[in-house]
Amino acid sequence: MISIGIVGGTGYAGVELLRLLVSHPQVSLKYVTSRSEAGMPVAEMFPNLRGFTDICFTEPDVKTLGVCDVVFFATPNGTAMKMVPELLAQGTRVIDLAADFRLKDSAEWESWYGMEHACKELLAEAVYGLPELNREAIRSAKVVANPGCYPTAIGLGFLPLIENALVDNQHLIVDGKSGVSGAGRGANVATLLCEASENFKPYAVDGHRHLPEIREVLNGVAGHAVGVTFVPHLVPMIRGIETSLYAVLKDPGVDLHALYLERYKDEPFVDVLPKGVFPETRTVRGANFCRIAVFQPQGGDTVVVSSVIDNLVKGAAGQAIQNMNIMFGLEETAGLDRPALLP
Amino acid sequence: MISIGIVGGTGYAGVELLRLLVSHPQVSLKYVTSRSEAGMPVAEMFPNLRGFTDICFTEPDVKTLGVCDVVFFATPNGTAMKMVPELLAQGTRVIDLAADFRLKDSAEWESWYGMEHACKELLAEAVYGLPELNREAIRSAKVVANPGCYPTAIGLGFLPLIENALVDNQHLIVDGKSGVSGAGRGANVATLLCEASENFKPYAVDGHRHLPEIREVLNGVAGHAVGVTFVPHLVPMIRGIETSLYAVLKDPGVDLHALYLERYKDEPFVDVLPKGVFPETRTVRGANFCRIAVFQPQGGDTVVVSSVIDNLVKGAAGQAIQNMNIMFGLEETAGLDRPALLP
Amino acid sequence: MISIGIVGGTGYAGVELLRLLVSHPQVSLKYVTSRSEAGMPVAEMFPNLRGFTDICFTEPDVKTLGVCDVVFFATPNGTAMKMVPELLAQGTRVIDLAADFRLKDSAEWESWYGMEHACKELLAEAVYGLPELNREAIRSAKVVANPGCYPTAIGLGFLPLIENALVDNQHLIVDGKSGVSGAGRGANVATLLCEASENFKPYAVDGHRHLPEIREVLNGVAGHAVGVTFVPHLVPMIRGIETSLYAVLKDPGVDLHALYLERYKDEPFVDVLPKGVFPETRTVRGANFCRIAVFQPQGGDTVVVSSVIDNLVKGAAGQAIQNMNIMFGLEETAGLDRPALLP
Amino acid sequence: MISIGIVGGTGYAGVELLRLLVSHPQVSLKYVTSRSEAGMPVAEMFPNLRGFTDICFTEPDVKTLGVCDVVFFATPNGTAMKMVPELLAQGTRVIDLAADFRLKDSAEWESWYGMEHACKELLAEAVYGLPELNREAIRSAKVVANPGCYPTAIGLGFLPLIENALVDNQHLIVDGKSGVSGAGRGANVATLLCEASENFKPYAVDGHRHLPEIREVLNGVAGHAVGVTFVPHLVPMIRGIETSLYAVLKDPGVDLHALYLERYKDEPFVDVLPKGVFPETRTVRGANFCRIAVFQPQGGDTVVVSSVIDNLVKGAAGQAIQNMNIMFGLEETAGLDRPALLP
Repeated sequence: MISIGIVGGTGYAGVELLRLLVSHPQVSLKYVTSRSEAGMPVAEMFPNLRGFTDICFTEPDVKTLGVCDVVFFATPNGTAMKMVPELLAQGTRVIDLAADFRLKDSAEWESWYGMEHACKELLAEAVYGLPELNREAIRSAKVVANPGCYPTAIGLGFLPLIENALVDNQHLIVDGKSGVSGAGRGANVATLLCEASENFKPYAVDGHRHLPEIREVLNGVAGHAVGVTFVPHLVPMIRGIETSLYAVLKDPGVDLHALYLERYKDEPFVDVLPKGVFPETRTVRGANFCRIAVFQPQGGDTVVVSSVIDNLVKGAAGQAIQNMNIMFGLEETAGLDRPALLP
Repeated sequence: MISIGIVGGTGYAGVELLRLLVSHPQVSLKYVTSRSEAGMPVAEMFPNLRGFTDICFTEPDVKTLGVCDVVFFATPNGTAMKMVPELLAQGTRVIDLAADFRLKDSAEWESWYGMEHACKELLAEAVYGLPELNREAIRSAKVVANPGCYPTAIGLGFLPLIENALVDNQHLIVDGKSGVSGAGRGANVATLLCEASENFKPYAVDGHRHLPEIREVLNGVAGHAVGVTFVPHLVPMIRGIETSLYAVLKDPGVDLHALYLERYKDEPFVDVLPKGVFPETRTVRGANFCRIAVFQPQGGDTVVVSSVIDNLVKGAAGQAIQNMNIMFGLEETAGLDRPALLP
Repeated sequence: MISIGIVGGTGYAGVELLRLLVSHPQVSLKYVTSRSEAGMPVAEMFPNLRGFTDICFTEPDVKTLGVCDVVFFATPNGTAMKMVPELLAQGTRVIDLAADFRLKDSAEWESWYGMEHACKELLAEAVYGLPELNREAIRSAKVVANPGCYPTAIGLGFLPLIENALVDNQHLIVDGKSGVSGAGRGANVATLLCEASENFKPYAVDGHRHLPEIREVLNGVAGHAVGVTFVPHLVPMIRGIETSLYAVLKDPGVDLHALYLERYKDEPFVDVLPKGVFPETRTVRGANFCRIAVFQPQGGDTVVVSSVIDNLVKGAAGQAIQNMNIMFGLEETAGLDRPALLP
Repeated sequence: MISIGIVGGTGYAGVELLRLLVSHPQVSLKYVTSRSEAGMPVAEMFPNLRGFTDICFTEPDVKTLGVCDVVFFATPNGTAMKMVPELLAQGTRVIDLAADFRLKDSAEWESWYGMEHACKELLAEAVYGLPELNREAIRSAKVVANPGCYPTAIGLGFLPLIENALVDNQHLIVDGKSGVSGAGRGANVATLLCEASENFKPYAVDGHRHLPEIREVLNGVAGHAVGVTFVPHLVPMIRGIETSLYAVLKDPGVDLHALYLERYKDEPFVDVLPKGVFPETRTVRGANFCRIAVFQPQGGDTVVVSSVIDNLVKGAAGQAIQNMNIMFGLEETAGLDRPALLP
């Protein structure tokens, strides 16, 4: 049994980790920390867990957490970086669901996150936890930077095109749409039901924090700096991300559908849809899949890719568990082999 | 492995059965029938099942279905009653998610369902599949009438009060609220998103078909005819039922919370909430639980019970699987031991 | 032109007042105050008002507001009571959308609102602004206590029964359901889209603050203390209240539908529906109507009344304007004569 | 008073016309036709109209309708074209909310709509009713083709860029998002609440019928054939369209915000937002406005335009009334000068 600690269990990524881990056959949940809720049973805050765990929130403490095989951070940005070195020193591996280890360039990180990075020396060593790109490195990683939700959907959508240099990658367009849970569980007027339901809008147009992460992933694949325009939108629903990706093809005649099928044929969580079928976010609700369609409207030279994930699963907690499974040599799908909840 | 057939797999109860059964460790899915969709892969209609089953819809055929250990009917009312006798003759057991076997009184059934009953001779033998009431009879049942969604929530809510003759049961009030999936997957103007979202209304006020079923359950427990007023309402959400039950106490001093805890202490799927905690439908979304609170507002002589279920799970497919588990001597929670999806 | 001030224009009742008043033919909007947003154009916070008003939020100041003919308070409870005496002294009339003047009994008020009442001497004089009950008194009122949303729907639903002493009013049952805007525009985890959508639950079961107000209204009509059980529920939608009222009839043979038609035949904003038709909240969305059905399920001795309003209109801003129209001798429907937004 | 007939009043565009017209100060509603509902009061089908009109649906009859000054068609495609010539012969003017007169090229029309056009001879004469483009022609038009919802949002968004030849218009990208009411009021599984809520997906990817209309509008403005990729998506809400438009600028240094302000400075229903402010669909809910933002993310050479409308108002019924106002010399904003319903 893998022994597990979770730092920051009161947000949506935290409760989703808990939901998935209480049904994982090979783990033992040791600690769930929350400074503000220490002492409260986890199932009192999240009653869907009543009957599944008696664990209570505890104060975060590095020494205590150090007995775990792996610690997940489901914390605000800037928290993990302060605790990770000490955890590593105790032999505990770390999966950070926040952004602290996602960028290799610490100056870029500091400019987007508005704080100094507390352990720059680990950035080179941390592995970006997109299994479809970095599976081998994840196996032995001490620190896994679990990807952001948008970068997961966008990365998986663009990979085959950019790996094969098929498009003008100076003018990549990403029109992203996210359910409201992406904004977290904090009290906030903008995400009240009365503000966000029956409404659709672009947001963070001046620059979403996932933009440098998207760029770094795509630059790495391309081998040079790509040009990306990224406009995220808020969808009046709880879970789900859809990204529509647009690029101009160098050669409109390539069989893109075959290319995508081939690229992802061994991936347990990437599902390239049949020709003529397009993804819906509800087909991945609560599940760890990314479903993708690639098509050329009216047979033109513009390729469109539509990819969907559940932002809390493949975009956060599910991918984190997938990474854990890889790190500890478990079946990659352990605890994640359930269909989406539909309807 | 229990071999399984599903008749009528294209509705919401059908896809929910499929979602739960593909993860059940002790079953083998043999047939899913649909007259209209024969030949189509089930996962083409319900893409959440892609990767979990390759089964295709087939024409319903009693001979073929007769090889199964058990056949679930997730069909419109009036379908099962025509096929069940022949299935029983082949030794196949039946769980009917529709209403064909729910009422003992065939004249009552015919008046509410507007058709002649095709196998009245089985009504006495059929077991009403509310495990918390009829577990022993279910074990050996040939035909289980899986309860309606409202009767499940209402029955579990009222049982301790009526079993103990604690209330004036000539003036029981039931204010029911259901998500829209209770109305099924048929094309229907009234359940379009544009008609049913951002809206709340009573419906079926003249008499919901679950009323005679509620009466029969409660009469059976009371030992005499009770008086029930039942007003159902439509809630702008997909899944979930909440029923608020009101009755006048004969003795306002009884410790009702203790009574409910005791009544359900061995029930794996009934969760009596702590004092001062009230149920939310989302805490059972996708899960087989019924969560219940009992309270006396302002300490008066009126008792209020609030019970919630997921109408597609404890109110349909989940309870049907719970019944199957009981019928075949499996662990009662097999395939159903997962927490609700929250948020 | 009636000159108008609004104190507290940043909440949902405030923006709804603004939406309705910018189209009212006989008013002139002078001041909208907000301590926190002073200086900001109202239309910057509420872009639906772009092009309709250039007014900016200003600091609340009693002297300045005193030039207005009438001041609306759309503030938290406890604000109006501190400013009203000075406004009255300047000859300005007041309509308070909060609860400060709704109860005649100051001790009761203080026990429910947890603060001392700052101007008890005005409670007797203040008029409870339910036009269907108190129209004559409203005409000359200096201070109108605009009713709460639930008390409006419940009061209008029960009036004909209680005025005519037709029911056992010691066991009145009110099952209330409200859209989320009733909880206001404050940052609050419980009303985030991710917490409140796809969910249904009872709330404030221990005692909603509208309960003493409901009691006072019904007691006044009955001429003695009635017994009410009130269980409110939260509906996953923005606007709308439905209340289902249950009572036991003394004489089940009375023609209740005729009674309701007669009671409300001259009321411009109360719509008694035809027999067999039941109300939907969307039919009053954005409009000042209360639509009501009265019926006896299965012809029994239990009467059920279902009434719907838009909690922000007939339950707040619209009723406040209706009161203003009455106070200043305008056409009662001025500025309010528009149909609901459907779908 | 302008006398009005509406053919096909049972859909969402029909009820929206009725909602707006019952409050229009200069019109008289004579006929609302519906073959299937003849005899039923309009307010029985749409109870938001109770108290506003006593009119009943009647059988459609060209002779009778010919007494009206203007007839609106809120019918399925292919209906208006059969009745319009006879109406014109009687001196009645026509505003068609469907697609029959939107394309000048009848072969193109027939290929997209799958039927023969019944009065090709009128296509040249019909005026495309986008007032911001064709106001003068609309004044004297006999037949106005009311634009589609997407073409309205997209046309208004692209006009300033294309009129001034500022972008590479061979690679225009349109990522469209629509509320579900765009799909109409027909019984349809895909638009049930249980299918469309808590879900987001692209649709009609192979070619939405608005594509040829978008092309024709933009080609006309450009003076040559443009290249457009159009991917519409379905948003889980009732009303609202947002279109995100992407193009590569020839000269990234042009002040686009000033250009848009100038282009629309006299337009009563186009609102160019301040720099840094982005549109939300709810700010136009129920109102006839189009709100637009133009921006260059990260100051690059890609311009993004976001425009929002209410698909049933500026995208259908409201724009139709705006056209009527222009045709009959009324104030262009008559009956349309109300703010959106927010929240």
